[in-house]
Amino acid sequence: MALVMSGSSLAIDISKVRGDQQLSQTDRIAVEEPLEIQLCSTTGDGAAAKSISITMRTPGDDAELAVGFLYTESIIQGPSQLVSVDHIGETDADTGLRNRIRVELTPEVEIDFGSLERHFYTTSSCGVCGKASLDALHVTGLKTLQDNRAEFRREVIVAMPERLMAGQHLFGETGGLHAAALFDEAGDIIVVREDVGRHNAVDKVIGWMFMNGRLPAQRQGLMVSGRASFELMQKSLVAGIPLLAAVGAPSSLAVQMAKDFGMTLIGFLRDDRFNIYSDTARII
Amino acid sequence: MALVMSGSSLAIDISKVRGDQQLSQTDRIAVEEPLEIQLCSTTGDGAAAKSISITMRTPGDDAELAVGFLYTESIIQGPSQLVSVDHIGETDADTGLRNRIRVELTPEVEIDFGSLERHFYTTSSCGVCGKASLDALHVTGLKTLQDNRAEFRREVIVAMPERLMAGQHLFGETGGLHAAALFDEAGDIIVVREDVGRHNAVDKVIGWMFMNGRLPAQRQGLMVSGRASFELMQKSLVAGIPLLAAVGAPSSLAVQMAKDFGMTLIGFLRDDRFNIYSDTARII
Repeated sequence: MALVMSGSSLAIDISKVRGDQQLSQTDRIAVEEPLEIQLCSTTGDGAAAKSISITMRTPGDDAELAVGFLYTESIIQGPSQLVSVDHIGETDADTGLRNRIRVELTPEVEIDFGSLERHFYTTSSCGVCGKASLDALHVTGLKTLQDNRAEFRREVIVAMPERLMAGQHLFGETGGLHAAALFDEAGDIIVVREDVGRHNAVDKVIGWMFMNGRLPAQRQGLMVSGRASFELMQKSLVAGIPLLAAVGAPSSLAVQMAKDFGMTLIGFLRDDRFNIYSDTARII
Repeated sequence: MALVMSGSSLAIDISKVRGDQQLSQTDRIAVEEPLEIQLCSTTGDGAAAKSISITMRTPGDDAELAVGFLYTESIIQGPSQLVSVDHIGETDADTGLRNRIRVELTPEVEIDFGSLERHFYTTSSCGVCGKASLDALHVTGLKTLQDNRAEFRREVIVAMPERLMAGQHLFGETGGLHAAALFDEAGDIIVVREDVGRHNAVDKVIGWMFMNGRLPAQRQGLMVSGRASFELMQKSLVAGIPLLAAVGAPSSLAVQMAKDFGMTLIGFLRDDRFNIYSDTARII
């Protein structure tokens, strides 16, 4: 059977067990479907598009997801390089979705498809290790953010989980999505995006910033619903966001990266409590 | 600076904010470091090893993680194909870790490196969609689990989150790891594994089953700490585990896959409550 869906969530029949009770009920769940991102460059002799990524994502904001991914992977640097971002292929009859998106770049952009196939945190210099992963980021020219002296009051930080939750429309429906929100020093949320994958939620936020001329970030922070991993820190760094606050725990490599690149990392942000793992001076 | 670590967690100095108070304290965080998995086949003319995956993982049970990954990706089918699984390369001076592991297979195993590079859920037949992802699993010969009539009492299911937590040693230290546990019909936990990545925690459990001659699973269930995604369902299916219970929400593709392959999917398992998304008959 195929579930009938439209958009980002869908209704299904489930059994709810509550103590000794079991009842049938309709409930909504978050949609998870693959998205293939294709890349091509407009050239005189026709554009050869190549698939560079397939990610399992929640449909919606697909264009933001695609350009956010390309930006945080340092494949594109600015909107002037972009010709078009369009869904391609047929609409799937069951789901009503199109799961392929093509990003067309200007002819000036050199796409090194070979290097795209090599994973970015392997270097020949010192083998595979977290330190090499960080060194590789330095090598790609990413600067530390220690000169970005954005400041956030404690009250602003502790208010963010509730504000994030208020912006999570799909979570309200389904109870099952990651979210990321960009916020300013006053604690106002600028944009919220949701996805079954937390890296996708962050890519959508950064893709929105890309499309709205908001990159690199100025004096803003990023709030995420889950844990803080290396991958999320790396995306924040590329976008110039000096503070990342997570509801959950950080990993060792996330902390080391925050320290290396002058970023503020906050974890276990719940109720009126949180932990600061690096650069405490941004919290006032 | 490099953080000094040993094993799966490390101690660092952090600032704890509690209301108006801010204090310095030592805390433990979960280690996240890359692991490269190399594959080679023993042949007469020497073995050419090839890197097939790099995953960010929490060190510990690396061999289980590697063979669990190879098994759930349907690259290997049984312990008789395995010659050796060993860390290779130098120990990193900062971390005390070795982050490369080489899996050597018997000469009889044909490794199709070309097909490893193509992502498993793209098929030419119907483009990129969740339905195609499921069809691809049927094509690889995976059978439904509807004939596995394991049965679990409600009391067994609602007791699992607490039992999982009791087995999470690293979570107790760090508050920040995913976990997966294999359990039997009586509710006894057979094995628990932890990782910063939930797919890695599941691969470690299935790798343990592989190494201990426990595959395919008989009448057992898998408990996971986070949400239920397509990827986790796919790994459970390959391992023959007919029931997956998640603390969090399931995605649409996880539910569809459970229905297609005769698996029982449980979500929102908290306190004495849970939702059943498919095949309710296994819950008694």
